[in-house]
Amino acid sequence: MLLYERLAGELRKQIAQGALHAGERLPSIRQLANGHGVSAATAVQACLQLEREGLAVARPRSGYFVRATAPQPPATRPARRSVPGTVSNPALQDVLDMLARSDLLPLHSATPAPALLPQSALTASLARCLRHDASAALDYAPPQGHLALRRQIAQRYAQIGAGVALDEIVITAGAMEAINLALRTVTAPGDVVLVETPTYHGILQTVAALQLKVLEVPNLSGQGIDVVRLEQLLQRNAVRAAVVVPNFNNPLGSLTSDVAKQALLESCARHGTVVIEDDIYGDLAWSGQRPSPLRRWDRHGNVISCGSFSKTLAPGLRVGWLAGNQWTDALVRAKYFSTVGSASLPQLALADYLQRHDQERHLRRLRRMLADNGQRLHEAIARHWPAGTRASEPQGGLSLWLQLPPGGDGRVLFEAALAKRIGTSPGVLFSSRGDYVDCLRLSCGLPWDERLDRALKQLGQLAAAAIR
Amino acid sequence: MLLYERLAGELRKQIAQGALHAGERLPSIRQLANGHGVSAATAVQACLQLEREGLAVARPRSGYFVRATAPQPPATRPARRSVPGTVSNPALQDVLDMLARSDLLPLHSATPAPALLPQSALTASLARCLRHDASAALDYAPPQGHLALRRQIAQRYAQIGAGVALDEIVITAGAMEAINLALRTVTAPGDVVLVETPTYHGILQTVAALQLKVLEVPNLSGQGIDVVRLEQLLQRNAVRAAVVVPNFNNPLGSLTSDVAKQALLESCARHGTVVIEDDIYGDLAWSGQRPSPLRRWDRHGNVISCGSFSKTLAPGLRVGWLAGNQWTDALVRAKYFSTVGSASLPQLALADYLQRHDQERHLRRLRRMLADNGQRLHEAIARHWPAGTRASEPQGGLSLWLQLPPGGDGRVLFEAALAKRIGTSPGVLFSSRGDYVDCLRLSCGLPWDERLDRALKQLGQLAAAAIR
Repeated sequence: MLLYERLAGELRKQIAQGALHAGERLPSIRQLANGHGVSAATAVQACLQLEREGLAVARPRSGYFVRATAPQPPATRPARRSVPGTVSNPALQDVLDMLARSDLLPLHSATPAPALLPQSALTASLARCLRHDASAALDYAPPQGHLALRRQIAQRYAQIGAGVALDEIVITAGAMEAINLALRTVTAPGDVVLVETPTYHGILQTVAALQLKVLEVPNLSGQGIDVVRLEQLLQRNAVRAAVVVPNFNNPLGSLTSDVAKQALLESCARHGTVVIEDDIYGDLAWSGQRPSPLRRWDRHGNVISCGSFSKTLAPGLRVGWLAGNQWTDALVRAKYFSTVGSASLPQLALADYLQRHDQERHLRRLRRMLADNGQRLHEAIARHWPAGTRASEPQGGLSLWLQLPPGGDGRVLFEAALAKRIGTSPGVLFSSRGDYVDCLRLSCGLPWDERLDRALKQLGQLAAAAIR
Repeated sequence: MLLYERLAGELRKQIAQGALHAGERLPSIRQLANGHGVSAATAVQACLQLEREGLAVARPRSGYFVRATAPQPPATRPARRSVPGTVSNPALQDVLDMLARSDLLPLHSATPAPALLPQSALTASLARCLRHDASAALDYAPPQGHLALRRQIAQRYAQIGAGVALDEIVITAGAMEAINLALRTVTAPGDVVLVETPTYHGILQTVAALQLKVLEVPNLSGQGIDVVRLEQLLQRNAVRAAVVVPNFNNPLGSLTSDVAKQALLESCARHGTVVIEDDIYGDLAWSGQRPSPLRRWDRHGNVISCGSFSKTLAPGLRVGWLAGNQWTDALVRAKYFSTVGSASLPQLALADYLQRHDQERHLRRLRRMLADNGQRLHEAIARHWPAGTRASEPQGGLSLWLQLPPGGDGRVLFEAALAKRIGTSPGVLFSSRGDYVDCLRLSCGLPWDERLDRALKQLGQLAAAAIR
């Protein structure tokens, strides 16, 4: 047995016996080398061996940590809405009231914390645009948006392998407006729209406001959209549009594979279903590998893509976009008669920022932080939450989806957490009929610190009390 | 006869004989005094006398000018849409394409030119907010909007005699989003909505996009909304909501009197019609006297008021608001699921600006400029346009409404002007069925200069050619 294998074996035993707890820091390389009378290289090899076995995890500049026994992913359940129905979600007033509070630990918000975003570079771009041309910054933008920014967005699509023409790009007030405009353009009241379950509640509320009916197709943690089920649903129902989040579903963080994406596109094209792709998390692959948007394989001109800078640069600038395909003219009209145009200064400043900075470098750092946060959340849940709590295995994005053990109520936990000034998103929001009562969504967008660690412990105690 | 009366008489004769043309500058006080051997005080009195008679008009720092024979106001015509119907306006693609062009003299845009707005003070406020708290400027705003700005808006309502609670104020992406949210909140597809004729085409397009039907009530130049006709229409039809612009209708610039406003409110309350008030021009009374919004007399809690900073401070910041009355919670929900929240930085900067500056002082200057522009436009039209051209008599706002002589076609003039790089708004846009083919709207928001003078002359020639 080699020296490093012997050292790895000793550490493995300590972990198995609980002498080293889940989430605990392993001794440093120097401590291991000195303590066991081996070279630093041998200590490093031992740690790498544990990492290969899934027992330890490396954190940049912090060393190695004992990996927690991962919670199981949430249980699969039958999609409830297999015939078209209306969205009948519970009241959201508590949730909206929560968004107006500034005294909460914002674990409810699927947004990166300000510290993870390039605020000083963006501030410099905003100030530069004001100095350079205040009139342009304060005057109306064209309804379709400022050309400089639209050009940057078209270039980005080219980089990630999707050919989107400059003429197709329409600037919007975030992806939420983009989805709204797309639905308003391709549907009429009473039409049926396919959505994932679980899915972002904003999509469901938009569908409800437009008097559309929904069908739900399951999205599974670690697998993404169930495209076999999708084909069945489209065969049995006339579905006008599908609003899907193949790249890191919110709340699950699951990635739909390239093969499944192409199957989805073919099914939708065959059945006359327009695809509205919400790709706001596509840049946030925790692996570092940016998955392609559906547009890459769109042979039928059947996809409207929605994107945003809210999840990667600045949520408060409210700048998103559409790649409008054959519907571009109608979408620009809808935009004009919805909000006239998006604010000028944020558009000009984002264009300036993107011209001057290596966005990929920022994204690399952001993805690493999110992946690290996700791992730490997993560990904290394994350590502090009731046994049997399940957690999604996000491949990207900004959120973690939890399922409490049998009898658990996410609404009770939401209210109890709010009383302790911790914001969470109750699971009932994420389906058309308030399913997922036992679930909860947490943000991965907060940098790990003492306060967050304490909050996860506190949430674990509240979760235990939220089980009947 | 007193000396000044004799001098006034001589000038009157010169005007009548055409020795002094409409729009021409009178000799200066010094020239008059020297030329006629009278004192400066006598010359001033003579000019004041001509002003009282409506023959001359004073312009700040420029002296006295011969008042043009005012064009007659547009002819009254029967309101076409007296039974509920759908909006069937002509295609707008040309108009939208025009908005994206930066090479036009923007006589199409009912917006003050940048030179009329306090750009340096606003730029300073934007820069100050960035320096002071970049995180707040870049992060999400609460869905209802930033408190500091909502407080300023509530204070303004108190100043103008309308009691609006702070809790009712919802920040929107301009008044266009406000009207959208209000209609989406109080109507369902198929409902009937009352609008003015003529009225802003954005209102008509929003109504069309929401699949609502319209009834039209006439608005008359110099008189405003015909409230007798409105009562008849409400008696005969179930009307869910009325979208009205009592303070300076766009395009006419007419003011509905206080008595008529109260009659309108009583009619609507009696018939269960929600009033959506678009008050974006209320601060732009050319007389200087700010008319009250409908909210002042709203005894039934039946009015949703919409406002904006686009027409008085900065169109490109895209900040407007709603005073939501009993519908506030539903409106905040609709806002959240439409655009999540408005951009933060513009809200914070406007609050900072309003705290630091005397807005009333800016408005006084702006109103004077607009009134002066309106007068000069009138004169230019009297001088250069085909005889029989009619023009509205705006009491406020940013636009002038023109009716060509019989056989005239506003669409032909619009296209011909566009070819000469002059933007105008064709009359067909301003009714639900493309009436007002012979009409055109011009902006009063451009400061008078040589270029504008030439453009008005050029438009007059094109107008002559646009008559069959």
